[in-house]
Amino acid sequence: MKAVVFNDKDGLRLDNNYPKPVPEKGEALIRVTMAGICNTDFEITKGYMGYNGVLGHEFIGVVEDVNGDDKSLVGKRVTAEISYGCDDPDCEWCAVKNYRHCPNRHTLGIWRKDGCMAEYVTMPTNVIFEIPDEVADEQAVFVEPLAAACEITEQLHIQPIQKVVVLGDGKLGLTTALTLHAQCLDVTLIGKHQNKLDIAKAQGVKTILLNDAKIDNSYDVVVEATGSVSGFETSLGLVKPRGVLVLKSTIATGKELNLAPIVINEITVLGSRCGQFKPALNLLKNKRIDFKPFISKIYPADEAIEAFEANKSKETVKVLISF
Amino acid sequence: MKAVVFNDKDGLRLDNNYPKPVPEKGEALIRVTMAGICNTDFEITKGYMGYNGVLGHEFIGVVEDVNGDDKSLVGKRVTAEISYGCDDPDCEWCAVKNYRHCPNRHTLGIWRKDGCMAEYVTMPTNVIFEIPDEVADEQAVFVEPLAAACEITEQLHIQPIQKVVVLGDGKLGLTTALTLHAQCLDVTLIGKHQNKLDIAKAQGVKTILLNDAKIDNSYDVVVEATGSVSGFETSLGLVKPRGVLVLKSTIATGKELNLAPIVINEITVLGSRCGQFKPALNLLKNKRIDFKPFISKIYPADEAIEAFEANKSKETVKVLISF
Repeated sequence: MKAVVFNDKDGLRLDNNYPKPVPEKGEALIRVTMAGICNTDFEITKGYMGYNGVLGHEFIGVVEDVNGDDKSLVGKRVTAEISYGCDDPDCEWCAVKNYRHCPNRHTLGIWRKDGCMAEYVTMPTNVIFEIPDEVADEQAVFVEPLAAACEITEQLHIQPIQKVVVLGDGKLGLTTALTLHAQCLDVTLIGKHQNKLDIAKAQGVKTILLNDAKIDNSYDVVVEATGSVSGFETSLGLVKPRGVLVLKSTIATGKELNLAPIVINEITVLGSRCGQFKPALNLLKNKRIDFKPFISKIYPADEAIEAFEANKSKETVKVLISF
Repeated sequence: MKAVVFNDKDGLRLDNNYPKPVPEKGEALIRVTMAGICNTDFEITKGYMGYNGVLGHEFIGVVEDVNGDDKSLVGKRVTAEISYGCDDPDCEWCAVKNYRHCPNRHTLGIWRKDGCMAEYVTMPTNVIFEIPDEVADEQAVFVEPLAAACEITEQLHIQPIQKVVVLGDGKLGLTTALTLHAQCLDVTLIGKHQNKLDIAKAQGVKTILLNDAKIDNSYDVVVEATGSVSGFETSLGLVKPRGVLVLKSTIATGKELNLAPIVINEITVLGSRCGQFKPALNLLKNKRIDFKPFISKIYPADEAIEAFEANKSKETVKVLISF
């Protein structure tokens, strides 16, 4: 089958003869129809997590088969959460179905599990979600990053009266700002690119160009979505004393950072990664966010490498690959 | 008067003719009897906060005069919280008497206010606390670092069933471990120096030498009290996924740090600085912690510079200066 593969030796490439996966007991075989490129995929091609294998963790597809007695998922349009756990009854994380922190987890296209940028992928049925009929493919393919944005209010109680700012107008920052806005919170998006800010603005989010922003420790909650050292430092300048800085970007490289402001201003830095799919699918079903304006281009699988190249451009928001 | 002074030009020195301070309206003039050296004082002599002036923010003394009608404090043995605010009715921090975050605050010996390593110091009466008779001078002089340790449970709800570890067996780590133990929490102290660990062990704290410690992400709460990059990294190895890392050390210099584990394990990093004196004085009054074993030596004021030298030694726990 076709698959977008990365390994240390050959780098990133399209493999036309990658072995089709075989579902293990309790797994479904899914025919992938569309996948999204995330910046984490790009970081992996630079060595993040030391991952080698099929890339990708954002996808939609149709179930072709299930290895198990219950075949009810066959033919359904689905997506899947990206981590699954050991399911050992003694695992404190699997016991509460938070597979994201199981120490023996597998994570799609990131850790010990071939990803979804391929014609087929397998996943355990207990992390597979049927996509509601109301949600078009071009919206549903955003469920994974949307779930990651929903994770913030899963971890943190933000009061409607509090001032929230998202720093960074890439796909992560846009998704986060739109999600917090959909959750009726008072959110402002700060970024460097007017064309990207406009995507959020068109859906009701307050936006400010970075050059016009006051960096005066006035926000209760700051979401860092740039992944850069300067973004982290700006975030420390935006957050109030005793406020919360949500660290949403995976940063792969060592950074020279002065952590003194965290202590002096008694900031809470909250690491936030992946989220549950259910609230994200609900937001999509209720059409609370429109992801169509995110899509810079949908590339056919044969042009997957070009899609990765396009993802590097500052003009690009989201690049999708159809299989 | 005698005063321990630091400025960029002359460095650290004992000044025998420093001008005696004059209390402003609402302030008391305090005859200092004893002051403690904190690592922050040492950091200031290396440029931290760009502070120039009399050093010191840990002290006890006797009130000689008050500039105001109410003279009831005169003759009382006292200490004082280290920050006072603008007291503007519109200041959200002063309104709740949390002067520690007032943007126009003064902080004793650290920011816009001469410190207490001198024969006299002035402080506003609203941050002055009378020392209970039950508390000896050699215990009372520890109230400021003890208050900083009490600050942790002011900020964070720690459940009795949770596993807490303090990393670092300097005076900060020892004080923190003893405080959390006094608060009936399940705390372990990890450090490199058996003689320092023994101070905590003698008062009931579980201790482990760093070389014997398992760094296996198994603690709900980790308090970083080393102030070093390696300590920060070890802390990230000690804390559970979704656990809390309390950052208690002021780190003055830029650090090369990999923040990815904060995001991947969804850690909460909580900056924690100074605390309120009331709970600290209560702990002292009830003799829940004995600080006597901390005292490496009490130096007379004339030997203050030698005291700072002694503070550098790894063998030293706490150095005091008597005035």
